[in-house]
Amino acid sequence: MSNTYGSALKLSIFGQSHGPAIGMTLEGLPAGFRPDLEKLQEFLNRRAPGQGVHTTSRKEGDVPEFLSGLVNGVTCGAPLCGIIRNTNVRSQDYVNLQESPRPSHADYPARVKYGTAHDGRGGGKYSGRLTAPLCIAGGLCLQLLEERGIRVGAQILQIAGVKNPRFDPLNPQIPSVYNVPTEEMLEAVAQAKAQGDSVGGIVECAVTGLPVGLGEPMFEGLENRLAQLLFAIPAVRGVDFGAGFDCASMLGSEHNDCYYVNQEQELRTRSNHAGGIVGGMSTGMPLILRAVFKPTASISKVQESCSYDGSLTRLQIHGRHDPCIVPRAVPCVEAAVALALADSLLEAGI
Amino acid sequence: MSNTYGSALKLSIFGQSHGPAIGMTLEGLPAGFRPDLEKLQEFLNRRAPGQGVHTTSRKEGDVPEFLSGLVNGVTCGAPLCGIIRNTNVRSQDYVNLQESPRPSHADYPARVKYGTAHDGRGGGKYSGRLTAPLCIAGGLCLQLLEERGIRVGAQILQIAGVKNPRFDPLNPQIPSVYNVPTEEMLEAVAQAKAQGDSVGGIVECAVTGLPVGLGEPMFEGLENRLAQLLFAIPAVRGVDFGAGFDCASMLGSEHNDCYYVNQEQELRTRSNHAGGIVGGMSTGMPLILRAVFKPTASISKVQESCSYDGSLTRLQIHGRHDPCIVPRAVPCVEAAVALALADSLLEAGI
Amino acid sequence: MSNTYGSALKLSIFGQSHGPAIGMTLEGLPAGFRPDLEKLQEFLNRRAPGQGVHTTSRKEGDVPEFLSGLVNGVTCGAPLCGIIRNTNVRSQDYVNLQESPRPSHADYPARVKYGTAHDGRGGGKYSGRLTAPLCIAGGLCLQLLEERGIRVGAQILQIAGVKNPRFDPLNPQIPSVYNVPTEEMLEAVAQAKAQGDSVGGIVECAVTGLPVGLGEPMFEGLENRLAQLLFAIPAVRGVDFGAGFDCASMLGSEHNDCYYVNQEQELRTRSNHAGGIVGGMSTGMPLILRAVFKPTASISKVQESCSYDGSLTRLQIHGRHDPCIVPRAVPCVEAAVALALADSLLEAGI
Amino acid sequence: MSNTYGSALKLSIFGQSHGPAIGMTLEGLPAGFRPDLEKLQEFLNRRAPGQGVHTTSRKEGDVPEFLSGLVNGVTCGAPLCGIIRNTNVRSQDYVNLQESPRPSHADYPARVKYGTAHDGRGGGKYSGRLTAPLCIAGGLCLQLLEERGIRVGAQILQIAGVKNPRFDPLNPQIPSVYNVPTEEMLEAVAQAKAQGDSVGGIVECAVTGLPVGLGEPMFEGLENRLAQLLFAIPAVRGVDFGAGFDCASMLGSEHNDCYYVNQEQELRTRSNHAGGIVGGMSTGMPLILRAVFKPTASISKVQESCSYDGSLTRLQIHGRHDPCIVPRAVPCVEAAVALALADSLLEAGI
Repeated sequence: MSNTYGSALKLSIFGQSHGPAIGMTLEGLPAGFRPDLEKLQEFLNRRAPGQGVHTTSRKEGDVPEFLSGLVNGVTCGAPLCGIIRNTNVRSQDYVNLQESPRPSHADYPARVKYGTAHDGRGGGKYSGRLTAPLCIAGGLCLQLLEERGIRVGAQILQIAGVKNPRFDPLNPQIPSVYNVPTEEMLEAVAQAKAQGDSVGGIVECAVTGLPVGLGEPMFEGLENRLAQLLFAIPAVRGVDFGAGFDCASMLGSEHNDCYYVNQEQELRTRSNHAGGIVGGMSTGMPLILRAVFKPTASISKVQESCSYDGSLTRLQIHGRHDPCIVPRAVPCVEAAVALALADSLLEAGI
Repeated sequence: MSNTYGSALKLSIFGQSHGPAIGMTLEGLPAGFRPDLEKLQEFLNRRAPGQGVHTTSRKEGDVPEFLSGLVNGVTCGAPLCGIIRNTNVRSQDYVNLQESPRPSHADYPARVKYGTAHDGRGGGKYSGRLTAPLCIAGGLCLQLLEERGIRVGAQILQIAGVKNPRFDPLNPQIPSVYNVPTEEMLEAVAQAKAQGDSVGGIVECAVTGLPVGLGEPMFEGLENRLAQLLFAIPAVRGVDFGAGFDCASMLGSEHNDCYYVNQEQELRTRSNHAGGIVGGMSTGMPLILRAVFKPTASISKVQESCSYDGSLTRLQIHGRHDPCIVPRAVPCVEAAVALALADSLLEAGI
Repeated sequence: MSNTYGSALKLSIFGQSHGPAIGMTLEGLPAGFRPDLEKLQEFLNRRAPGQGVHTTSRKEGDVPEFLSGLVNGVTCGAPLCGIIRNTNVRSQDYVNLQESPRPSHADYPARVKYGTAHDGRGGGKYSGRLTAPLCIAGGLCLQLLEERGIRVGAQILQIAGVKNPRFDPLNPQIPSVYNVPTEEMLEAVAQAKAQGDSVGGIVECAVTGLPVGLGEPMFEGLENRLAQLLFAIPAVRGVDFGAGFDCASMLGSEHNDCYYVNQEQELRTRSNHAGGIVGGMSTGMPLILRAVFKPTASISKVQESCSYDGSLTRLQIHGRHDPCIVPRAVPCVEAAVALALADSLLEAGI
Repeated sequence: MSNTYGSALKLSIFGQSHGPAIGMTLEGLPAGFRPDLEKLQEFLNRRAPGQGVHTTSRKEGDVPEFLSGLVNGVTCGAPLCGIIRNTNVRSQDYVNLQESPRPSHADYPARVKYGTAHDGRGGGKYSGRLTAPLCIAGGLCLQLLEERGIRVGAQILQIAGVKNPRFDPLNPQIPSVYNVPTEEMLEAVAQAKAQGDSVGGIVECAVTGLPVGLGEPMFEGLENRLAQLLFAIPAVRGVDFGAGFDCASMLGSEHNDCYYVNQEQELRTRSNHAGGIVGGMSTGMPLILRAVFKPTASISKVQESCSYDGSLTRLQIHGRHDPCIVPRAVPCVEAAVALALADSLLEAGI
């Protein structure tokens, strides 16, 4: 089952980009939890387009309506359902795409999988728009984690060729000053946009305050769950933890994190190449991970494609599209991470 | 639940490194399937130690005994349970580790999670030894896939600083000539070993022959499932697909894979930066992924650590340990990949 | 996880009786399926109150709004979300119940489980009202089954002491003439109502046209799934199949269903004490099951109760309540049965 | 997935009646739990045949070997795998059954489902023999529950036409004096056996000491889980709770359980028609349920059947078969009940 995730928390996401509404049902939040809905809205606003000159000009105003699970602003133990009406959809932008698949979009495999019944308008259920309900769920989880002293923050590590410094794995600053793009990054994006092109990038996330021993072994370790959720964000093509892909070139004596006892008499490690996870479990050190995002598939440059009946075509994608989704992906990564961690925490009875 | 995986196929893995036996139960294999048990054994032998001078000298002879699910060598529709007795265990090697956790091992978080009841001998349930039952399940799935014209093959992309060429994403050669380490790699490993150290590396995997549209959306896409399974292999710290982390620096017009029609009148793409997966679904192009392995945590060099009661110690790990587990990880990656794909195929009724 | 059910079909139900809306998300319906929404509405109407003089006078007008999953009336492969706004809620009827639990309602254990945050208005998430989304899902499944030649029909076997004949297990008539209460039953209900009391009853369900071999063994056999779903309908206190509880007094030679070959050269049985299920699998004979419903817990007679602070009270339940929910339970049983069967069918790739 | 059950506890059962071994893997037992293995064996002995003159003479000696999860008799947090070797199998007894299905056995639907690859020897995976691993898991759960002050006990309510009194729903005696058959019952069984026939019966189970509020709503309430597990015991054809099927004829004022405060200042009910469950949750009153067992399908009387190629045959079942499995079903019901409750308790973090 694809649109359902979780163990102690169960998330079910629904909706297509151009359908009547998108939304999510989240079951398992403890009863008596009072989410700060203004803070949630601020979080959702970070994901919304129109935050800067270089993001898409389509305003989405993602204000969820909660249909269940909240009574006078407090969770009652019933599944919490929140929906967002889709407005301002311009399906005509997609009419000419019906007969030939857009490169690097889900169009072609979805057409084979679901036939002509597939709702391809705006990417349908494969749209990045579906990260809005993910952010509702994740935004609530972020608050749940914060109540338990756990802080989650993501930053932009790279956009196009422009890089920011990594988090300090021993003491990551949350929120990072790099959770919005730098000037240099914005310039790179503007340059691509001017050419009808797009760019990718890398988002890094840090978590502090996790208890030791969180995460189940083997298939339900923290990496497994985090990766499963992160790959649910469209455009993510890779995920790594701690030293990540760099550890291929490291020696064991370099990579191993040796133990010492800190002032609170807790076992901690002097380095944190593990990124806070060993054996699928949290080590008590900051959790560090990265997710790489491919360049936006929708570009306005003319591209070669092929209609379903087999004839070659030249395809130009109109409509409003981000030349770089990385800035909006920052809260999405935070949401996915918070959801995986809250699920593991509640499962552990913490 | 941690040791159970799957949807149409359900895998349950059990055992600790130094317990009586390790094993797995796999439910959902179609009835009437006759696995080639010799071929399965050859596959398991690729994972076993002692294949080369540079791997650990502990011989494990992983010959599974099947307790159920097979009648006269044919699957009968009942869950297939296969076990491997643990013999030649030298638990005394681990006695001195009881009181202080080994760096980069699961010892410490497992101690916090399970208390002193945790079976830490040889890593217990966190041992790389548990990849043997994974390889039983995966080896069976490989044969199931082959029957359907799907070939899975992994290769060594990097060990220490030594690199091999990547798979040709349009036409990967399976099996790769690089599914065993090169001379140069073996030298790098030998050098590390001589210094009581270890090295990491990268395994790349390719799959050909997948039907288009395999994989469920959002949380159960191919990347989600593959990543969830790959992170179940101890020492994996990152996973990426297609162009992977490189796509951070690419333009959309570079990264997008444009469609054409091949001679069989099938839609295919001229490039394959997607690594055969878009929107969580197979595209009909070869699937390409990579997993990075950290350097073996067990090194014979003296390391600093700290006992559970808080006093600093110096710790030396004895016993038989691979200075590089990457060669043995090659079939493990194939197993994990085959399992995820077979699960998705059977779920789709293919 | 409690509000989520299913394997190939995944149902998630949300809402409280007096919250903004109730609804359901159903994932896994095949793409390209065009449900007859008028027929669905007729089905939902059978569950709605106000169908007869003896049912509650509260009109609910359960007309679902579909937020996703349907494009121009055809399923597109995305999860189908349907909601029903709660209107005409009279929460003041429940104000005096806050401090003392109603007998035979979920109030007390829910108060212990969720604390004062529990939404007890109208029974909250434990309300019979939540069978409306179950009927949306089940009503869609009924149509899916009908397309495959499978017919599901329930009837009233008993209300109070008044009984109807059982289905002919070899050839059940669907729809049954007894899918609405008889005059005698209505009189029994009216009599109870006049005394501020309520009555219970038994609903029997038959299914024809099932293929042979449907149902997974052990924990996911047809009985297991059907029972799991039927007990999700509030007030169900027992479920049996075929000869059911009567088989305690039967001899094996009486109960065993012997095989013969029918004119279509199919193996069938001369009797059907098994109710169409053996070993958790369908036998090709009609499926027969029963569910018993307790008398409505809400009665207007004064009852003894006890406030949460421990003092005895006398409690009178106002508001609109059915003196007998059995007539409205008939479509709910059909819905639950259809859902379990559609899930098993789709899982089997049929 | 059929042979896997559970949420916080995950049970996977494997094996066929005449395969090399049967067994189970149970994951989720808390680390540090020391099961009393002698007591477990006594429990398993209650299920074994040969306990009385009237049960089958086949001795099974079900002594499990634990392959994982226990270190020095204490659970270590890893999945616990226990197996039982099948010995003394007499498959020749089943040779003549290959071509025609036994009435009321799973033979026919299994043949359709799995084809000729199905292992029908001794019922294969549908054999009552598979309740042995269920009893290993359930026996461990019984001990876990006892540690928490929860007692589970089943009794024989009926065999053939002979009935015992029901449990006192307010104060059930555990263990019941009726957990073995009465003389009169044994006579009824002997009489049936003398005629080559078999009888059915009813097992009733009571549980005391449950905390209030256990059980998740809707699809994962206590009734749902208990029923799902009870129907996994072969021959169970019905399950009811509390007043069960009798409540069809009761008035609400009769059936409702009114609250009072007991001497420990706890809310309790004066009657217990609910059988300790309302809204899927435990009420603090004793849990009472019943499961009805069909007469043993295997009878030595000649029966009519039909070969798979369509010709009518007369079939006589040889081999060792209980004329009444109800006495051996008593611990199986206790096992299923204990498993469902332990799963719910651990899920709730109790």
